[in-house]
Amino acid sequence: MKNKSQIPRLRRGYDGQANPLPSPKRNSGSEQAGKSQPEFTVLRKDDITGARAGNLTTRHGVIETPVFMPVGTQGTVKTMSPEELKEIGFGIILGNTYHLAMRPGVEIIRRAGGLHRFMNWDRAILTDSGGYQVFSLASLREIKEDGVTFQSHIDGSLHFLSPESAIRIQEGLGSDIMMVLDECTPYPCEHDYACNSLERSLQWAIQCKNTRSSFDAALFGIVQGGTYADLRRKSVEELKKIGFDGYAIGGLSVGEPRGVMLENVELCTSLLPEDRPRYLMGCGTPVEILEAVARGVDMFDCVMPTRNGRNGTAFTRAGKLPIKNGAYKEDLAPLEKGCGCVACRGYTRAYLRHLFNANEILGLRLVTYHNLFFYHWLMAEIRRAILEGTFPRFKEEFIAGYRSQDSSKQ
Amino acid sequence: MKNKSQIPRLRRGYDGQANPLPSPKRNSGSEQAGKSQPEFTVLRKDDITGARAGNLTTRHGVIETPVFMPVGTQGTVKTMSPEELKEIGFGIILGNTYHLAMRPGVEIIRRAGGLHRFMNWDRAILTDSGGYQVFSLASLREIKEDGVTFQSHIDGSLHFLSPESAIRIQEGLGSDIMMVLDECTPYPCEHDYACNSLERSLQWAIQCKNTRSSFDAALFGIVQGGTYADLRRKSVEELKKIGFDGYAIGGLSVGEPRGVMLENVELCTSLLPEDRPRYLMGCGTPVEILEAVARGVDMFDCVMPTRNGRNGTAFTRAGKLPIKNGAYKEDLAPLEKGCGCVACRGYTRAYLRHLFNANEILGLRLVTYHNLFFYHWLMAEIRRAILEGTFPRFKEEFIAGYRSQDSSKQ
Repeated sequence: MKNKSQIPRLRRGYDGQANPLPSPKRNSGSEQAGKSQPEFTVLRKDDITGARAGNLTTRHGVIETPVFMPVGTQGTVKTMSPEELKEIGFGIILGNTYHLAMRPGVEIIRRAGGLHRFMNWDRAILTDSGGYQVFSLASLREIKEDGVTFQSHIDGSLHFLSPESAIRIQEGLGSDIMMVLDECTPYPCEHDYACNSLERSLQWAIQCKNTRSSFDAALFGIVQGGTYADLRRKSVEELKKIGFDGYAIGGLSVGEPRGVMLENVELCTSLLPEDRPRYLMGCGTPVEILEAVARGVDMFDCVMPTRNGRNGTAFTRAGKLPIKNGAYKEDLAPLEKGCGCVACRGYTRAYLRHLFNANEILGLRLVTYHNLFFYHWLMAEIRRAILEGTFPRFKEEFIAGYRSQDSSKQ
Repeated sequence: MKNKSQIPRLRRGYDGQANPLPSPKRNSGSEQAGKSQPEFTVLRKDDITGARAGNLTTRHGVIETPVFMPVGTQGTVKTMSPEELKEIGFGIILGNTYHLAMRPGVEIIRRAGGLHRFMNWDRAILTDSGGYQVFSLASLREIKEDGVTFQSHIDGSLHFLSPESAIRIQEGLGSDIMMVLDECTPYPCEHDYACNSLERSLQWAIQCKNTRSSFDAALFGIVQGGTYADLRRKSVEELKKIGFDGYAIGGLSVGEPRGVMLENVELCTSLLPEDRPRYLMGCGTPVEILEAVARGVDMFDCVMPTRNGRNGTAFTRAGKLPIKNGAYKEDLAPLEKGCGCVACRGYTRAYLRHLFNANEILGLRLVTYHNLFFYHWLMAEIRRAILEGTFPRFKEEFIAGYRSQDSSKQ
């Protein structure tokens, strides 16, 4: 399916270079064996729900699933240091290929020894293909069968992203888990558009798989098809035929009602292979994560804990807590009683509110830290509950406690 | 000299309360003994210059001098956590009474257990009197003999700062080293104005000393007198008569030429008691600190390492390094080779430049960290050189290396 003649047609590589990037050395040993990272083992499946606990082995460590991956868009998880992420316990973060390719560019990251060394992170990194940001951030997009032409949102420069360049760039970054190039359709989306888009995404998925030059990094396919059951079915079946190390569910968490999202998640996980990890892209709130885990999802990423942290909204077991609120002006309690995070062990709500009021960066740092600690704690508790056979009760109790205090969208 | 009848005339306390703050319990034991913190011991005086190495004992630890104190204006050293400050090795920081009294207010800090507990810092804190900011930040100032009426720069509310309230607030914050209320005259300043201002500052110094209710915290007098030798002499002589635990040199580093500053520093230190610590307020650059140490100064504070850090200017032994500069785009060296700080051990100039270009907070954190580490390293090296009897050579070599690379004002 791979059309090698397309490569010379690259106008300007996504990496900002005129020529395609040289590929890293092919690891012919592991390719011949047909065995690639990550290995994935389901340790236990819940008796009642679809929840699973597993281990995902990458070049940079074993990831315990279900897992939440903090988003490190521009080569840093906003406000945090790598040491702090490790202190919390994260073993994998996400990097955004589009942002990194636009700034500082892939070439300097490659010369620095890859994204891990560039950003001083020695645990696992999952990279997206860049497609999502091309479709959401860049301007003057022109989608053709062989790829997308677009203008950088930073300096207006013209770039071309193809299935081939998406993989070469991710290999250049040194990603542990790469994603295929796809089009993430919006919500709502006409059936005709979603169907045509899916066909193209499937072609791109094949080309991505054919482009990979090494099996050191995993490659995940991405299920699309909007909110149409026939298209989702088709997407899963075709991706399974191609065969990937794991499968992401894309095109959800884009504005559809939660019920619609969960129906589509359930449909996908019911069809995806049991022995491969499943990653729900861009999800979500604590309650959404619990519902998706119950439907068999293993991996999550979302800007919610970090973005909300910088906006002064803390996640707690009792719901969201808007720390800038005047109610906390003289509140000498920690953000969340019993929480063992740096922010809760050392600081009061009154102090955190003061930091936000006074525009002090330590405020952004501490609430972001707390939120990531909370998300990590939640995933660890979910995993423990699955392994102990108590996940349904844990889910029910968490949601009851969380909703009781929070009237906003969870 | 203290006129008790003035206290009821307080219109609105600086603390935002209608009534003067209740004073902490008087420690009559130590008052009777006439012995107060901090104890100060000069360990060695340089044979050639006026440099001294000493130990300053406070309620929150022993401070090795010469010392640099990072500025924690609003109850946080900008971008840093207390853990990071301790990791670098700082034993004392500065808090700005004006800012803290305006926001969040002294009462909430007192109820939180004092500034140390509020900001999670268990080492020493020096507080200013608030006078400097009243004269530089607030509007509608009305200076009278009994104090200053002013409007908050935050919300325009009306406040009154007197010698008495300045001390009560600092005691309320739980300061380890308090400063008397004074007027910091500008540069240039007419002799008449400087003379009248000095008279008032001396009166206020007496009232401050009479107001202190405990000897747990030290109280420093502040030498004023503009750039007039006769006034500086008078200021020192009068302050010595009143008697303080230490002496600050104020009214310098306000725009005067460096030579003028150093002349005035030298005049003051030549007159100040040998057995008390000397603190040059608001100074300075690495070279200025070396020159002032050579003239017998023991303590320094300045926003320079933190403010420059947030602007992307790093201090190195070779001079200042503007990390946003395009020259560092592909520079895979650390900020400073051989530096043991977190930023230099883990990150390249290219990565730090990327963080600044992409407006990522980690960039502000890392360059601030490096700069504070550099200032702390400089003070430790100065102290070691004094103790080893090699200070003049160290000073000369540092300045030669520093200037060779830096054409801007050092």
